Amino acid sequence: MEIGILGTGMVGQTIGSKLVQLGHIVKMGSRTANNEKAIDWVKSNGPNASCGTFEDAASFGEILFNCTAGNASINALKLANENNFNGKILLDIANTLDFSKGMPPMLSVCNDDSLGEQIQRTFPQLKVIKTLNTMNCKLMVDPSLVNGDHDIFVSGNDLAAKEKVKSILADWFGWKSIIDLGDISAARGMEMLLPIWIRLMGIFKTPNFNFKIAR
Amino acid sequence: MEIGILGTGMVGQTIGSKLVQLGHIVKMGSRTANNEKAIDWVKSNGPNASCGTFEDAASFGEILFNCTAGNASINALKLANENNFNGKILLDIANTLDFSKGMPPMLSVCNDDSLGEQIQRTFPQLKVIKTLNTMNCKLMVDPSLVNGDHDIFVSGNDLAAKEKVKSILADWFGWKSIIDLGDISAARGMEMLLPIWIRLMGIFKTPNFNFKIAR
Repeated sequence: MEIGILGTGMVGQTIGSKLVQLGHIVKMGSRTANNEKAIDWVKSNGPNASCGTFEDAASFGEILFNCTAGNASINALKLANENNFNGKILLDIANTLDFSKGMPPMLSVCNDDSLGEQIQRTFPQLKVIKTLNTMNCKLMVDPSLVNGDHDIFVSGNDLAAKEKVKSILADWFGWKSIIDLGDISAARGMEMLLPIWIRLMGIFKTPNFNFKIAR
Repeated sequence: MEIGILGTGMVGQTIGSKLVQLGHIVKMGSRTANNEKAIDWVKSNGPNASCGTFEDAASFGEILFNCTAGNASINALKLANENNFNGKILLDIANTLDFSKGMPPMLSVCNDDSLGEQIQRTFPQLKVIKTLNTMNCKLMVDPSLVNGDHDIFVSGNDLAAKEKVKSILADWFGWKSIIDLGDISAARGMEMLLPIWIRLMGIFKTPNFNFKIAR
């Protein structure tokens, strides 16, 4: 499948590389066509990897991954040009972490809104599915990094798109326990997991842990 | 031990009854000395249970439990009179859930502050330990209601008080896995678990589940 990755950071690189390993054709998009990190990533990922602008990646991908920093996501998606979005699935992985006032970071959006909802409202042509935002990026594509059972959450308004994303999580990335939280407003609760996640990482000194709902 | 419970709702009643069963002497406090729910609770819990005003309960208890609604907690503690607080431990179990705009509820305080921190700031004579707020009240005093391993969080500034609370959770209520998140500012992350908790309860149709950090 042809997939567009928006963002060139660790999350975008990790997911992009996993997708290339799985045999997909991946274009990584950023603000400029000659982003150094994107070019390096292309070099180390072979002929099925390419890069370009946000618009190039959005136009290329049948499915899109939002791996930008949460506070830059809306602008990145505007640059991606909504004319490229016609009914495509966007996996929204971003969190609006704001480190500008020091540690611990705060969320720029929470409680009565979420980034997932903002993106869905701003770009109704996208089928936004919030997922993967509640863990470290290595764990996103390799759940076996954490022992035992643990969970991944999904939320979104389009049921068929959500089923497609669940099958991506299960069949491509290896997730066994996927909890469907309902419509995109559940992105609030998913994004509000970040403050305790960051606190836990500081205590455990490793990002290799994950939420599990015991029942 | 003599214990003061602030609040007469399900949380206060459930914890109060458990403490009486354990042999403690419990006074339940509310806005008025003759609160009907408190009087009914006393009747069904025998001679070691009593009730009175917030001030009566705060003066009576060597240890205090804040089981009021989060948005009423600061006022309840003011009525309890800070002269009764001299160095006492307060287990803060409350959440600032605001249902006034319908479902899902929002938090009145979050992100850059928390109820736990507000209480500690307002009443420096208390040793505030945030705990037990991330689950249903029946589970608070009986972790075996949920299968397998699952976690309870604690945070607070006073290390000795936090150790005392950990022993209360372990020895009185039966908690095996207690995660110490550090100082009281970690109450932000603990209280911000509520939106996803409420969403999960709606999906599972039962409050008998709990967070577990897999690692």
